[in-house]
Amino acid sequence: MTELLRVPGPQGAPPSSRAAVLDAIRVAGTISRVEITEVAGLTAATVSTTVRRLIEDGLVREAGRGESTGGKPRVLLELVPTSRYALGVHLDAEDVTYVLVDLGGAVVARLRRAQAVGDPQTVVDRMAATVRGLVESTEVAWDQVLGLGVVAPGPLSRRSQLVLTRPAMDAWGDFPLGPSLGEATGLPVVLDNDATAAAVGEHWGGGAGGSRAFAALYLATGIGSGAVIDGAPLRGVSSNAGEIGHVCVEADGPECWCGSRGCVEALAGPRSVVAAAEAAGFDLGGPGRGLSERFAALARAALGGDVLAANLLGRSARYVAIAAQTLVQVLDVDRLVLTGPAMAVAGSLYLPAVRQRLTTSQFARGDHDVDVVISSHAGEAAAVGAAALVLQGELVPPGGGLRIDVA
Amino acid sequence: MTELLRVPGPQGAPPSSRAAVLDAIRVAGTISRVEITEVAGLTAATVSTTVRRLIEDGLVREAGRGESTGGKPRVLLELVPTSRYALGVHLDAEDVTYVLVDLGGAVVARLRRAQAVGDPQTVVDRMAATVRGLVESTEVAWDQVLGLGVVAPGPLSRRSQLVLTRPAMDAWGDFPLGPSLGEATGLPVVLDNDATAAAVGEHWGGGAGGSRAFAALYLATGIGSGAVIDGAPLRGVSSNAGEIGHVCVEADGPECWCGSRGCVEALAGPRSVVAAAEAAGFDLGGPGRGLSERFAALARAALGGDVLAANLLGRSARYVAIAAQTLVQVLDVDRLVLTGPAMAVAGSLYLPAVRQRLTTSQFARGDHDVDVVISSHAGEAAAVGAAALVLQGELVPPGGGLRIDVA
Repeated sequence: MTELLRVPGPQGAPPSSRAAVLDAIRVAGTISRVEITEVAGLTAATVSTTVRRLIEDGLVREAGRGESTGGKPRVLLELVPTSRYALGVHLDAEDVTYVLVDLGGAVVARLRRAQAVGDPQTVVDRMAATVRGLVESTEVAWDQVLGLGVVAPGPLSRRSQLVLTRPAMDAWGDFPLGPSLGEATGLPVVLDNDATAAAVGEHWGGGAGGSRAFAALYLATGIGSGAVIDGAPLRGVSSNAGEIGHVCVEADGPECWCGSRGCVEALAGPRSVVAAAEAAGFDLGGPGRGLSERFAALARAALGGDVLAANLLGRSARYVAIAAQTLVQVLDVDRLVLTGPAMAVAGSLYLPAVRQRLTTSQFARGDHDVDVVISSHAGEAAAVGAAALVLQGELVPPGGGLRIDVA
Repeated sequence: MTELLRVPGPQGAPPSSRAAVLDAIRVAGTISRVEITEVAGLTAATVSTTVRRLIEDGLVREAGRGESTGGKPRVLLELVPTSRYALGVHLDAEDVTYVLVDLGGAVVARLRRAQAVGDPQTVVDRMAATVRGLVESTEVAWDQVLGLGVVAPGPLSRRSQLVLTRPAMDAWGDFPLGPSLGEATGLPVVLDNDATAAAVGEHWGGGAGGSRAFAALYLATGIGSGAVIDGAPLRGVSSNAGEIGHVCVEADGPECWCGSRGCVEALAGPRSVVAAAEAAGFDLGGPGRGLSERFAALARAALGGDVLAANLLGRSARYVAIAAQTLVQVLDVDRLVLTGPAMAVAGSLYLPAVRQRLTTSQFARGDHDVDVVISSHAGEAAAVGAAALVLQGELVPPGGGLRIDVA
């Protein structure tokens, strides 16, 4: 039996002491029980009981003693990163990326497959076989895997659990991906859109740099974004917050496939950049190659000094920078992480334009600077983020999203 | 002595039982103790103790018995709206609006004054005298006033507690408005920007229509917005979230005073609409009249059938609608309230354009509709919102913002 349940938002679910203690240890690296009481705002008795259970469960271990501050040196605690794992799957138009991530956020195994051809149920069965194979290729036991995070380009639908409405994924229609994968793998499944997952992954992996409110701008074949504010992903009423690719930056701009006009994705997305390059006679390997590969070829040409390629990517960067400014101003964040496969190959072409744009308006900054950085794992950010959604569900209070538990 | 303290965000401050019980009663109108335990997730003992104290403090009273559901009919509880009050002050470039609001959100007294001329301290002293006079003009005792909410066009600064950087308010520079008003009135002071306050006011006054995530688009001399998500205002790292007036909707659009280009405020704000009308020879009463009055005159002309006026406002509405779409998509809200003095006089000219725009892109809707309505108190939304910030601080868990308490 598969049950769909709506995980309550942060207001409805105050952090459990288990989640609070684990998060304090994760953030600190090593920490004493006394320090946990201070950081997590819990009583010494609660911390003591909770830590004992975490040690019994194998998630936490003692790691020597800290320096003495007068009395007996305090015992330090740390996570056992190899105690639990999470699977992350990123389903995109062209291919599927699989990662196995440990409790500490490190990628233990990774795999990329071409998008399987066939009806959705066949694809789901093949995906289930692939994740089993990925786990079996490591020393990790199946029962150490906490769950499976699956992300895809949005928008999410609460009715069907995941609707992939981008043109390239029409075949998926209203197929209930989450429940099907839950049944095929026997694992709890968490669904989200790729950009929100990428933001959660940065929060998990340290890319947030300690910011209380940061956003991730995700550039793949489409453009999206996610934000984490006070530790919880910003979701909105239907888990589709951060849809920055379809904000209008030219009132009379070109039509977009979404039905609107002048969207940043239509003007600046890799699809439109590649189309413009090929229309100008650029040979990017022909239509036999995937869009991501052709975009990467164009980025290499620009980085190699080709003027036309540099101009096309410069024009894209100008619009992406406007979108970045909109995101920073509407959400008032002080850190922006540029991520996604397109940023992995062309980040250095986008970064200066975004940084420059954020200095033009005093409203982009408020009374604080905005750090702009490129993700350390931009190429597989969505898959890592999908796994981080699972870890986040285990370690910190749930921040909403769709979760399917297999009973 | 005046102390500035940063109220922690919702994650740092789980709701007190007092706040939770009061909020349950406020939302329900009348409710029994048993129903409060269900709504607020508290034990019967906690509800019983908390209700007794609230009755002793005069904030809550018994209001007869409900229908029997088998056993003894349950005693119903309700707020005593006249037990506490809050003052709201909206400081704008042209004038200052004062309101006194009761615990139920009703405006008990209102006053509008031209912006006082003089150095900031003189202005503050006059404001303090005005709020005392406003309270004295009613039956309300001074010690029933919970505090003073003061809002102004953003951006806020944490360093100086309130910086009014819009061009018309340069004279205020880095003047510490909050602490000065706290000392002059002896009341706790809450500061925020006008658009965030307007959103909190809608949340308080029912304009949110029960939405879990809604935004208020605030059109005055400038354009701003605020959002309330899961009961807490969205603030960002520096309380400047929602700065929608300075998002770019024309990459090569006109320069804006903020330093950027193509901002929606520069293209569509009342200042630019009035300037365009006067450049086209429209007589709006001349420079002796304030901007708001001239904009209202233009709106009346458009509503009366003047084609030029209708075209100018139609152009403005088109850009405002784009900003509305951006806001709805980035935050994923399902309700948008159009508010502010410009919407009070011209809302019917903007509403159709905004509604129309939100149907053009599937991303504006996600898998849900977006209700667009005009505020029932658009003309004094910021002042009412300022008072609601004070009430919110008393009744519900604090959602951030700057609060100055007078010790």
